[in-house]
Amino acid sequence: MKVPWHLGKLRSLASEKEADAILISRPSNIFYATGFKGGSRLVVPAEGEPAILVGGVDLTAAQERFSKAPEVVRVEHVRLGEKLDDRTMKLLKEMGIRKLGFDELPIKTYSRLAKEFGRGNLADLSGPIWDLRKSKDELEKELVREACRMAVKGMEAASELMEPGRTELEIVGEIEEALRKAGSEEHPFNIIVASGPNSALPHARASGRELKKGDLVVVDLGATCSGYVSDMTRTFVVGKPEGWQEEIYRIVREAQEKAIMALRAGLKASEVDRVARSVIEEAGYGPYFVHGLGHGLGIEVHEPPRLAPGFEEVLGANYTVTVEPGIYLPGRGGVRIEDTVLVFEDGCEVLTEFPYGLKP
Amino acid sequence: MKVPWHLGKLRSLASEKEADAILISRPSNIFYATGFKGGSRLVVPAEGEPAILVGGVDLTAAQERFSKAPEVVRVEHVRLGEKLDDRTMKLLKEMGIRKLGFDELPIKTYSRLAKEFGRGNLADLSGPIWDLRKSKDELEKELVREACRMAVKGMEAASELMEPGRTELEIVGEIEEALRKAGSEEHPFNIIVASGPNSALPHARASGRELKKGDLVVVDLGATCSGYVSDMTRTFVVGKPEGWQEEIYRIVREAQEKAIMALRAGLKASEVDRVARSVIEEAGYGPYFVHGLGHGLGIEVHEPPRLAPGFEEVLGANYTVTVEPGIYLPGRGGVRIEDTVLVFEDGCEVLTEFPYGLKP
Repeated sequence: MKVPWHLGKLRSLASEKEADAILISRPSNIFYATGFKGGSRLVVPAEGEPAILVGGVDLTAAQERFSKAPEVVRVEHVRLGEKLDDRTMKLLKEMGIRKLGFDELPIKTYSRLAKEFGRGNLADLSGPIWDLRKSKDELEKELVREACRMAVKGMEAASELMEPGRTELEIVGEIEEALRKAGSEEHPFNIIVASGPNSALPHARASGRELKKGDLVVVDLGATCSGYVSDMTRTFVVGKPEGWQEEIYRIVREAQEKAIMALRAGLKASEVDRVARSVIEEAGYGPYFVHGLGHGLGIEVHEPPRLAPGFEEVLGANYTVTVEPGIYLPGRGGVRIEDTVLVFEDGCEVLTEFPYGLKP
Repeated sequence: MKVPWHLGKLRSLASEKEADAILISRPSNIFYATGFKGGSRLVVPAEGEPAILVGGVDLTAAQERFSKAPEVVRVEHVRLGEKLDDRTMKLLKEMGIRKLGFDELPIKTYSRLAKEFGRGNLADLSGPIWDLRKSKDELEKELVREACRMAVKGMEAASELMEPGRTELEIVGEIEEALRKAGSEEHPFNIIVASGPNSALPHARASGRELKKGDLVVVDLGATCSGYVSDMTRTFVVGKPEGWQEEIYRIVREAQEKAIMALRAGLKASEVDRVARSVIEEAGYGPYFVHGLGHGLGIEVHEPPRLAPGFEEVLGANYTVTVEPGIYLPGRGGVRIEDTVLVFEDGCEVLTEFPYGLKP
């Protein structure tokens, strides 16, 4: 399976920001740059050979990966007992770096770099790196697409288990097995199966609670394909739905559908949120839609941009984002419907294709 | 199920460090303090009422949790569109904070606080907070113990699946189902099933590879009970073991056994590592034991202290740590054996009780 390779983009970013190099620490940024899961830090100079600092635990895997990489990356073995910060300083000096961009650092490391380089020669490039990651290239789109296909297999398994007496955790176990069978290499987040009153908690944690007739059940799951993830939610009912359940389901689905119909490059993130939120507000449930409409995703399950009030950023083509309105009635139950979608110039495509409805 | 409550310890830490308050952002520190999973930031003043900043997504759960908490914590709702940093500044001003401790912050937030308070009035207390977390109280020990019992159920399931033709990912799926049945509320890390040459990669990721006769198979898994985790590894063989496999297994097990026999409060972390490493070095496999002997664990699966060369910290009673030597022969295969243990004044106890041996 292919993996991402974006060293060129980071090198260009260094040049553009007039930095001699970028020091990368966030694991997902190292993976974005090199397709390698592991390693402690990566130094990407504007010119010359990048170097990755790797502990013994990742050394064999790193040597294997970089022996087949499209361009040379020096693998630097950080030996047991060596301090990562000492080694980082040494490497930056050897490379002759004077102006340094970075993505994220512990305060202690930042302070040490500030002493060494001068605060004015350090630049926080976390934002610009996120900007690069937002727009997915062809390979990334294919991997997210495949991760969505895997997630659908998990949702199919879930939909067949909406029976009284099963516990939330038991259903999570069955979903996980289905996802692994589908080839998911990692669960991007702790799967949510939230039944009855638990379904009114957007970030509920699955428990030993048994499903009962009349429960709403929110199922929120995702999959990972070659490091890229998917995220989707459906809400089911155990037995026959009651009127209030059908009502909030209908409203949430209408909000989602309208947002998906509106979503395209050139809109502000907050505008897409507004489309869905208006539907829910007009139906009188505004106070019960307690979170933003969605978020970007790719290597991580929560990436910029946020589709939420106050986020005025303009969406671009090839962004992958979630669209997930919800209504949560404390003590009673909640409905959330979520899809992963790919944004185009003139619209968007739902990648997590699975039927809607409390009884799909 | 009971959850941790350590606000008192943090309040004392604030006093001791002459800080008016500690600003806590790391999710596991918020959980350590309050037993609440969620929330964006927590402010613990040396005197007076703590406050937790909570988005809409966690609001109902937070209100529920803190209405039953042993002491008053003000739940501050961060509304959609409000910036967390703005709200944090406002809250700190309202509380009259002048000297502030913190655990971790994005550089941007740190710089803003530095402007507001003066760099000299900020103190990085991440180390002292880790120090508090290292030593487990009675409840924490019971939860880790229970998480270990759950992990053993997962390992039992794994041990029955060492047959040619099964894929690594399929076995991971079965393990996850067993863990969920045992009540594990979250997988603390992506479970490793690494077979054949993959077993030589300490941080291997499970793949679609089918098990073959003669493979070594490293299985590394854990469970979570009320927010506290366990971590264990066994190595199995498919079919009959070869001589070299038995040899490295015997050496790794001897290294582990000797380290466990030696482990007690008052030893330096590096000294325990040395006990195990000497066994492996004397057998001629020193270069193939490429990582430290172990690590602390509790709310997170990797917590201080590290049991590794260069870590001179003295171990204390009631620490929970892993003991996990390994030998990895690139291209051929590897063996790792890992237990979670509880450190006493005069010894330690293995909490992940499961037979040893390539064919247990």
